Amino acid sequence: MSTFYGLARRNVPELELVIIGAGAAGMAAAIYASLMDINYVLLDAEEGGGLMNLAKAIENYPGLTGIRGPDIVRAFREHLAKVGGELHPFEPAQELSFRQGALEIRTGQAAYRPKSVIVATGLEVLGLREEYGLKNERDFLGKGVSYCAECDGPLFKGKAVMVIGNPFDAFLLRRLTDTVYFLGPVPEEFRNQVPSEIIEANDITYLEGKLEEPEGKGLLEAVVVAGKRLAVEGLFITRRKAGSELYEMKLDDNGFIIVNRQMATNVAGVYAAGDITGEPWQIAKSVGEGAVAAMSVFKYLTGQRMRNLGWALQDEWME
Amino acid sequence: MSTFYGLARRNVPELELVIIGAGAAGMAAAIYASLMDINYVLLDAEEGGGLMNLAKAIENYPGLTGIRGPDIVRAFREHLAKVGGELHPFEPAQELSFRQGALEIRTGQAAYRPKSVIVATGLEVLGLREEYGLKNERDFLGKGVSYCAECDGPLFKGKAVMVIGNPFDAFLLRRLTDTVYFLGPVPEEFRNQVPSEIIEANDITYLEGKLEEPEGKGLLEAVVVAGKRLAVEGLFITRRKAGSELYEMKLDDNGFIIVNRQMATNVAGVYAAGDITGEPWQIAKSVGEGAVAAMSVFKYLTGQRMRNLGWALQDEWME
Repeated sequence: MSTFYGLARRNVPELELVIIGAGAAGMAAAIYASLMDINYVLLDAEEGGGLMNLAKAIENYPGLTGIRGPDIVRAFREHLAKVGGELHPFEPAQELSFRQGALEIRTGQAAYRPKSVIVATGLEVLGLREEYGLKNERDFLGKGVSYCAECDGPLFKGKAVMVIGNPFDAFLLRRLTDTVYFLGPVPEEFRNQVPSEIIEANDITYLEGKLEEPEGKGLLEAVVVAGKRLAVEGLFITRRKAGSELYEMKLDDNGFIIVNRQMATNVAGVYAAGDITGEPWQIAKSVGEGAVAAMSVFKYLTGQRMRNLGWALQDEWME
Repeated sequence: MSTFYGLARRNVPELELVIIGAGAAGMAAAIYASLMDINYVLLDAEEGGGLMNLAKAIENYPGLTGIRGPDIVRAFREHLAKVGGELHPFEPAQELSFRQGALEIRTGQAAYRPKSVIVATGLEVLGLREEYGLKNERDFLGKGVSYCAECDGPLFKGKAVMVIGNPFDAFLLRRLTDTVYFLGPVPEEFRNQVPSEIIEANDITYLEGKLEEPEGKGLLEAVVVAGKRLAVEGLFITRRKAGSELYEMKLDDNGFIIVNRQMATNVAGVYAAGDITGEPWQIAKSVGEGAVAAMSVFKYLTGQRMRNLGWALQDEWME
């Protein structure tokens, strides 16, 4: 199906926008683009929904409480369909380039030359497999293992938990429960900000050492670090990396795309939204940024059209 | 009730946060603050919900389609209650000051001295009464009169409409329908960006002249400008002003609070979110900014505590 749509729309002359990535930010941008009657294509490398698919119970998207990840994805997809939008699943953007002053996005199926782009490729969760050689973390997903402290933290009030990744997640969980372990070393991007001494000063037990497979019958019961068994009911693995490197936009030290408050990147006509623009990694933030990016695209397209008609425009239009 | 809570919490020593305004941004911030176990007070000058209360059918808050304004307000309030939050209705902040290096918010009922503040006071809609002396615009609210082109525009596809206010709303509507009137003069804040010639170049009819009461039996049917009757089914009144002037934060030329991407203002510990930070005025943007502001407050409070314990912190923590 994606192939069909991809080919059918190949090189459409009036294509105004390509949205790369259909997680929370990309879907929000697409809903807005549909409502504003912008001619766009929404691409996703997989089925759409992004990291929302992995969430157990989402308690922090205002207006929808206790919704499961797959259910919020369904709600977003239904919303998109209702406003006339569609998703090209399994059509990853492989290259974003600027040829002869024009934007071009190549996928396996098509080459798109839109007037504008929204990059919403999100993050990849770094599990324990790569670094620690562990295999069963996903068996405990939603049964003690979580990839999002802000999302799932409240489910672990008063329970012992361990954090691997972002020390701020440990601080956050420490407000909700007395027993928090942090498995170091502190990831490089936080090492200057948060040395291990500050983690300990927050009454969090800082550990280093070899990690074994998580243990538990059904639900998570314990982790073993350096041969020592620690009873924990929650294991928060909050290590991330930017989900795509196909673009030439200016990035910050951690690989996130630098944007202004209008979600414009340093490249004219290219906007970014969602997790790829940096912390906090929240559905609400991604949705808001997707909406803002789409509205900025609308202003940009209007400005371009005026420019083509010979009008001199204020620079602030083009941001 | 608000009085009771206000008095009961007067000068609570450990008060960490006051959120001023309980529209989309303030409620989102409060939901997040509750989930992070931050000790906070949420104030609203009225019942809460802000401009959402005036929306007819909201089609652009991802995940909830076709929801009426009062229904989304109810959903947000129920969400807040579910996570243990509460609202102080009818307790407007009258003064935000910095006394002896401490933040203080005075209301009629109490003086709060929190460690941090989120300003989410939103916008006031400027109706036609003040400038044109008209009285019946609100009779047509949801029956042709709208205060939000992005929200209600799609309901007027193919119908004749008039815009009073933001010229970008006229551009947006022009995509959805052929007949768009713009009643000038262009508001001052847009006059340099968008002179009337650019409005006309977008195939929008630019008019000036005396406006009479909107006409229609039940639904809006026409407006009269300079004695000429124009059949329109939609009248978009999109004039706004910042909803509060109680604060000392740095504002932009249009009276909106200047924030960075973490929603920090120029005053340490004071954050802002939602419509008060500028366009676009969207529920999704407000919710995202409220969430980000609350998470920034969490980082700020953590940083303050560390500082009090004698740790030297990176400046970026304090943003």
